[in-house]
Amino acid sequence: MTETAPGSTFVAFVRDHQSAVEAALRELLPPPTAAPVALHEAMHYAMFPGGKRLRPMLVLLGCMSTGGDPARVLRPAAALECLHTYSLVHDDLPCMDDDDLRRGRPTCHKVYGEATALLAGDALLTLAFEGAAAGGGAAAIALARAAGSLGMVGGQVEDLAAEGETHGHTLERVQWIHDHKTGALITGALVVGAHAGAAAAGHPEGAPDDVIAPLIAFGDRLGRAFQIADDCLDLTGSAQELGKNPGADVALGKLTWPALVGLERSLATAHSLAGEAAALAVEVVAAAARWRGVDRSVLDGAARLLQDVASYTVERRS
Amino acid sequence: MTETAPGSTFVAFVRDHQSAVEAALRELLPPPTAAPVALHEAMHYAMFPGGKRLRPMLVLLGCMSTGGDPARVLRPAAALECLHTYSLVHDDLPCMDDDDLRRGRPTCHKVYGEATALLAGDALLTLAFEGAAAGGGAAAIALARAAGSLGMVGGQVEDLAAEGETHGHTLERVQWIHDHKTGALITGALVVGAHAGAAAAGHPEGAPDDVIAPLIAFGDRLGRAFQIADDCLDLTGSAQELGKNPGADVALGKLTWPALVGLERSLATAHSLAGEAAALAVEVVAAAARWRGVDRSVLDGAARLLQDVASYTVERRS
Repeated sequence: MTETAPGSTFVAFVRDHQSAVEAALRELLPPPTAAPVALHEAMHYAMFPGGKRLRPMLVLLGCMSTGGDPARVLRPAAALECLHTYSLVHDDLPCMDDDDLRRGRPTCHKVYGEATALLAGDALLTLAFEGAAAGGGAAAIALARAAGSLGMVGGQVEDLAAEGETHGHTLERVQWIHDHKTGALITGALVVGAHAGAAAAGHPEGAPDDVIAPLIAFGDRLGRAFQIADDCLDLTGSAQELGKNPGADVALGKLTWPALVGLERSLATAHSLAGEAAALAVEVVAAAARWRGVDRSVLDGAARLLQDVASYTVERRS
Repeated sequence: MTETAPGSTFVAFVRDHQSAVEAALRELLPPPTAAPVALHEAMHYAMFPGGKRLRPMLVLLGCMSTGGDPARVLRPAAALECLHTYSLVHDDLPCMDDDDLRRGRPTCHKVYGEATALLAGDALLTLAFEGAAAGGGAAAIALARAAGSLGMVGGQVEDLAAEGETHGHTLERVQWIHDHKTGALITGALVVGAHAGAAAAGHPEGAPDDVIAPLIAFGDRLGRAFQIADDCLDLTGSAQELGKNPGADVALGKLTWPALVGLERSLATAHSLAGEAAALAVEVVAAAARWRGVDRSVLDGAARLLQDVASYTVERRS
């Protein structure tokens, strides 16, 4: 893969920031030796080793593309991974998806028991807000709205409800579930980064609405592309690439794009959404440059990164 | 009961602020008609009708006693009740205490099923931070620390672990569990109120450490007195007064003060702690008056309220 292949600029960005994000995570989490040890061990088990830390990277990108310094928002970036991880731990519980395998290892409740896994999830969710609030009140509010009953948790409820249904599987329904269950937190990560970057630069109220609006529009497309690509990967990926059993969505009767319109049309839609996102990236940096009073060219690199993360989202193999 | 009976000033304060707190709760929660309806119904079921809303009232008191305007911190006050309610919903789940009855009604999972109750708890926890962060980053961070793995959730883990043990039941162990499971959030409520009141008055960084320190010392005593009194009520109260079956702690083999040192010594300790708290109330308002640059007499009423809530805590019958 050359540096100009789709997604490679973002992959290089991830490589460059991975160790800083991991360090921020280890700083935010109490050590596994802290009392109660079983709880902190379970939290560490769920968090390390992690996936690609996509959501923390989106916090850094949301910050950079709105003119902020990503080095100042590492704690809010770590917060997004805590929040994402809590949702996985609770999703895997017996009363939810009842999964045994996650990232190629036994799920948290398989190792630590149901009660400790439930509480480890609760603690990670709580810790996410300790981290987000380090970026100010606006960052924490943005995270809460993305993650709550009108966002991610709402999507999980509808996703579970849809599993048991034998009719009513429309594309609109799938889209609603995707937008809430996955999209809200992807957009939320970008917005948290923008607000936290603003707060670090002396704006405790966060970034203004006219800077946030194009970022939300970008995030909406990115989130949709991400989830459609994810549904397709469940059909085309290997267990090794995915770290979980492929075909799991089909086995659970989950609502997915490929189940409704086929693999080919799903992939075409994902690519089209990534294209829309790339166009919106230009608007994001234009609004940010006006607000910050800097020349737009200063944010050219950030715009290219936003465009490249959109390509990465649909080209990835895991 | 005359106006000078122990606890009556606080009871009058609760009466005066109850409707404002209920209104703030209904504003913070999405309506039960919002999608997904089952989730929002479950959240409302758990929240309304509620208990005495002690923790929101402590947010208002934490604000007032440090010189803030309680009318400006109603949203953070509502947040504390969301957080407390989430902890009850998750505590009642089959993998935790497996309770059928709460506040005299079937528990949330008995009515809405385990998955929806789990997610309703997650959503209430998330919503708590949307409310707390309306009082600024410092208020949200204080709530997260009080509620997380080094606070309330840590206490729940140790409480569950202690149930299965046949030895090691020391007073130090009970105290650690009480301090974390119950005390942390009581102190947290006061601190959230102080920070949110400061933020509303133009201090986005919250109240200074030398104002927070005596408030924490007060809250620690109040929290200990509260939990010991609670343990005693489990033995001496009626199902009607408690809204749950009395003797439940004993049946579960839970670590309690009366189980270790008897009812009489437990009640004496609770009263002694309430007395210490009353003395510390004076230090709280003294530090706050210095910081705000006002005469201490301005905060005399708030000091009396703090002292009275300590009396109320050990005199209550439910």
